[in-house]
Amino acid sequence: MAALVLPDPVFFGVGLGPGDPDYMTLRALAVLRRADRLVHFCKRGKRGNGRSIADAVVLPDPAREIALAYPVTTELPADDPGYAQAISPFYEEAAARLASELQAGRTVAVLCEGDPFFYGSFMHLWRRLAPSFPTEVVPGVTGMSGCWSRAGTPITWGDDVLTVLPGTLDGAVLTARLRSTDAAVIMKLGRHLPKVRDALREVGLLDRAIYVERGTMPGERAYPLRDKPDDEAPYFSMVLVPGLGRRL
Amino acid sequence: MAALVLPDPVFFGVGLGPGDPDYMTLRALAVLRRADRLVHFCKRGKRGNGRSIADAVVLPDPAREIALAYPVTTELPADDPGYAQAISPFYEEAAARLASELQAGRTVAVLCEGDPFFYGSFMHLWRRLAPSFPTEVVPGVTGMSGCWSRAGTPITWGDDVLTVLPGTLDGAVLTARLRSTDAAVIMKLGRHLPKVRDALREVGLLDRAIYVERGTMPGERAYPLRDKPDDEAPYFSMVLVPGLGRRL
Repeated sequence: MAALVLPDPVFFGVGLGPGDPDYMTLRALAVLRRADRLVHFCKRGKRGNGRSIADAVVLPDPAREIALAYPVTTELPADDPGYAQAISPFYEEAAARLASELQAGRTVAVLCEGDPFFYGSFMHLWRRLAPSFPTEVVPGVTGMSGCWSRAGTPITWGDDVLTVLPGTLDGAVLTARLRSTDAAVIMKLGRHLPKVRDALREVGLLDRAIYVERGTMPGERAYPLRDKPDDEAPYFSMVLVPGLGRRL
Repeated sequence: MAALVLPDPVFFGVGLGPGDPDYMTLRALAVLRRADRLVHFCKRGKRGNGRSIADAVVLPDPAREIALAYPVTTELPADDPGYAQAISPFYEEAAARLASELQAGRTVAVLCEGDPFFYGSFMHLWRRLAPSFPTEVVPGVTGMSGCWSRAGTPITWGDDVLTVLPGTLDGAVLTARLRSTDAAVIMKLGRHLPKVRDALREVGLLDRAIYVERGTMPGERAYPLRDKPDDEAPYFSMVLVPGLGRRL
């Protein structure tokens, strides 16, 4: 095995996987155990899910921890100009704070749900800090891999095309993208679930769609989307449309 | 951490990640250490890459190992009728062999590169055995996550759509799919690289494309596709087209 030694100081983005701490990588474990500072994002007044995943392997230690509380989360849509106005200064300040830790010679690890470079908040820190500090990104098992594994649903076979769609897209765009793919993952459902369901129905994919909630986490559930009786979709939920490609 | 205890007998598909054994999960490690049989796919007369990844954590042990040698690999295109004729009986025989191990009360783990349910050969065994035996699929870090992490390239930002495309598709299909996505991963390059390059050029994405070879493995290389001087693309290579979505 490659050496699990950390150069110092280094800025880490650490993918912790989809939620079940057993799906953390050996590299993530090594970084969590040795980094001087463990950074996580959270809602104001709440503990972040990334930090909770890490509980299985690192005890809480106030001297090591830096919690970055988002000034807004779902109060404003992300395409609202007010959202960028509120959140950009937050990332600026957070990056400055981590830069001062790195300048003081400390190793800083940002805990990331899933994979850091796949829709990760970490990327907004990375683009500010990676040009100035030695950086290592530790890939993680994505939330979608966790969901299709637990749902017992291979996602792509043979030459299937897979499209990953945020549920935030316009209905017409969702419909067009679903029409031209073999398999799909629809993330960021929230209040967009009725629109997502309509788009799937329109292209004839509703009966193939699987709804997964809290995949690999306590309270996990997976079942056909057509059996879902309501329009409620929490943050940790997604829809899978498995491909039908070559069976051998 | 959830109990790392294996029920018995169980049929496992174990994602080993993109190549670097440090990107194996804790659950994969537990299964590798305890399973009665370790199964890997390989080319005739060669050791499989999945087995090589596992070398870091489990010593070779002929009594534990089952190598499944593909009767054909790249000699025939996968859409050639002769390919299915040669490979379907291979999966049938392999499934029967593993079924007899499971019936004898042994725990059987199939070693999978990347994630078992994402274009995995394992799926052809899974569809034959999962209906009859308790089955657990251990998700893994995909090859594409390993590649974009090592290339230092976030793949999706904000509401980016990601499309995963096999390079085996027709040029016209590749072009259409690339035109309607924000970010792309093109896998299964091989002899299709010239066609992939043409499609990227046609839609104006060639200058954004990054070529990654042997990501997270010895001999890893990543550089702009436009700088690639030849048409050679080994099995472990892919092209990444990073998204340009919302920077905050």
